[in-house]
Amino acid sequence: MPTHPWQAALRLQLTPGLGLRRNKLLVQALGGCTQVLQAPAPWLREVLGERTCAALQAVPPDWPDAVAAVEHWLAAAPAGWRHIVLTWGDPDYPAALCELPDPPLLLFITDAEPADAPVLWPAGVALVGSRGATPQGLAITRQWATELADAGWCVVSGLAHGIDAAAHAGALQSERQGLLTMALMGTGPDQVYPSAHAHLKTRIAARGRCVTEYLPGERARKMNFPLRNRLLVALSAGVVVIEADLRSGSLISAQCALDLGREVMAVPGSIRSPLSQGCHALLRQGAALVTSSADVLAALPAGLVCPVQTPPWHPTPPAAPSDGLDPAWIARVRQALGHDPWTVDELQARLGGSWAELQAGLQSLEWRGLLARLPGDRVQWISDGGEPVIPDK
Amino acid sequence: MPTHPWQAALRLQLTPGLGLRRNKLLVQALGGCTQVLQAPAPWLREVLGERTCAALQAVPPDWPDAVAAVEHWLAAAPAGWRHIVLTWGDPDYPAALCELPDPPLLLFITDAEPADAPVLWPAGVALVGSRGATPQGLAITRQWATELADAGWCVVSGLAHGIDAAAHAGALQSERQGLLTMALMGTGPDQVYPSAHAHLKTRIAARGRCVTEYLPGERARKMNFPLRNRLLVALSAGVVVIEADLRSGSLISAQCALDLGREVMAVPGSIRSPLSQGCHALLRQGAALVTSSADVLAALPAGLVCPVQTPPWHPTPPAAPSDGLDPAWIARVRQALGHDPWTVDELQARLGGSWAELQAGLQSLEWRGLLARLPGDRVQWISDGGEPVIPDK
Repeated sequence: MPTHPWQAALRLQLTPGLGLRRNKLLVQALGGCTQVLQAPAPWLREVLGERTCAALQAVPPDWPDAVAAVEHWLAAAPAGWRHIVLTWGDPDYPAALCELPDPPLLLFITDAEPADAPVLWPAGVALVGSRGATPQGLAITRQWATELADAGWCVVSGLAHGIDAAAHAGALQSERQGLLTMALMGTGPDQVYPSAHAHLKTRIAARGRCVTEYLPGERARKMNFPLRNRLLVALSAGVVVIEADLRSGSLISAQCALDLGREVMAVPGSIRSPLSQGCHALLRQGAALVTSSADVLAALPAGLVCPVQTPPWHPTPPAAPSDGLDPAWIARVRQALGHDPWTVDELQARLGGSWAELQAGLQSLEWRGLLARLPGDRVQWISDGGEPVIPDK
Repeated sequence: MPTHPWQAALRLQLTPGLGLRRNKLLVQALGGCTQVLQAPAPWLREVLGERTCAALQAVPPDWPDAVAAVEHWLAAAPAGWRHIVLTWGDPDYPAALCELPDPPLLLFITDAEPADAPVLWPAGVALVGSRGATPQGLAITRQWATELADAGWCVVSGLAHGIDAAAHAGALQSERQGLLTMALMGTGPDQVYPSAHAHLKTRIAARGRCVTEYLPGERARKMNFPLRNRLLVALSAGVVVIEADLRSGSLISAQCALDLGREVMAVPGSIRSPLSQGCHALLRQGAALVTSSADVLAALPAGLVCPVQTPPWHPTPPAAPSDGLDPAWIARVRQALGHDPWTVDELQARLGGSWAELQAGLQSLEWRGLLARLPGDRVQWISDGGEPVIPDK
């Protein structure tokens, strides 16, 4: 059995077919990762279904190796550095991430603070954009990052080529004391991607922080980077898109920011530049037009600081799940939803029946991992147990 | 006495201290310029005040020369061209101008249509911007102007250097039949400013139209150009600002367009370019962001054509003006208004009294040339009988 909460979290994370959304439901309902593993089997079977409950009760075969890898990494911090694993439920776990539908259970952190100092989460502002930015885009990013760091903000970005690297490097030009910049990585904490940014990563850890949800040893995988963006956004009060073409991942970050109620800002540019098309699309959708770091500061909420210690779960007893769902009803919901997201109102208009029964049924489907909640009181069927595709609004 | 309506209009226009706003009130109330000159003296004295009434009844000393200048210009059209003077009240006078608080009583038109053809006013789209535009701004303007003209729109601009000239030249590249472009001039119809645009003016008149409210012989005066912009805007369904710095007259045109309910569009550009700052200011205020002529076409109202023949005045008997105003009340209004624009609501809160009495009193002040109506149900005192400064909103 796990001896630390992070070991319990690791078991939940490695349990096949469980997923971050259902892990959030479980941790919120039961009060912590360790408590989930100690929950009575009948209750788990009722809410998760037979197969997932059985998976959760077995020890995942890759769990011992993962524990060993984390322990190795924790012990491997060079002198003057610290390696930390934060588990959802720890006092230092950033409450802002709990706003996500799929918060990570674990965060791996590298910084150069004293070993016993708390992990504080100051107000962040994300500067994001294309890996293939123009020289002007890079210069703007560096300058604004320095100015925002000087003004007391922590510049958040993704350690990638282009705008990301310029954002970190610009923030590190600031002479302010405190956390200047934060890199959200798409790899394990002991990896660097791109490898050319090894030195930059060290500089960030020295005067800021490197953060990832991926396990030590996890190399760069293409699918990790868009997922990483949700953390980058959640830890920021606002997202500034400097340069982005219409297929840029920055537009996904901007959509995520809208969903989370974060301020979205975009920098206009030449209509001849493909790297401005994404920004112009955001401006058309109502993003704030910014042409200076002063504009960014004016658009950011005043005095916002991520709460350091907010209980990330509801300390209430587990909600009584609804009784066994009628397979015919499940089939009707599935047919009504199809592949598209629908509001609960629309779904009720299609299915009829009482509002309370529908909500209870939907909650059970969510626990079973068959349904995802989307922003705007919408729901979407998860056909293969995977994450839903969040569509454009 | 005048023998043609345009001669009557010329007398009203040359009457000292009358002004375009009061001329609009008079023409709307009495049915035409000739009728104003024939109105009973006691009525005029009552509504305009003693001094202005006396000025209106005297023949302005410069009127005979002005009539001769117009007659000379009308007769001086080269073969294949026509010179036309339109008076407010003529069937061909563009109804769109009557939406202005200060419509011109006369329009001087140069084109190459058959002598007896009506003066039609097709749907216009204004392309405006800086005289010192960038090569990219000029290229965009030329391209979009051609595309808008191809799509059936008449490209409206001001014959100036820079964006204006590129707009006219681009429209003239279209091979479409019909009115391709319209130049609103800040000089008399026989003048060209800048002089380098003499050939351009000829080309515009050949496949479009040159329009001005200024008398033959009137040279370029700095104050004419912002006034000219109001006609340019009123004759257009939308205004596209291509490049403009923060002091550009194009921003005045954009404000005028908002006041008239015209669509305002702006082209984003590099945040390093001073010539994009005006555009970015407009985008922040809600202007539509356009990056192609297709965007412009999508933002323009579908199928809009300026009405060819709408009665430009209310064929009702003259409104009975309120009786002699109390000088103490006038002094109170003047003190309450100061130099700023106020809504009528705000003014009533300051002055007290009944709404109907206040409105009647304000109407009398307007007739006396002491008060101007501004958009948004606001009023402003006209201290020296001049036009009010329309403030930023």
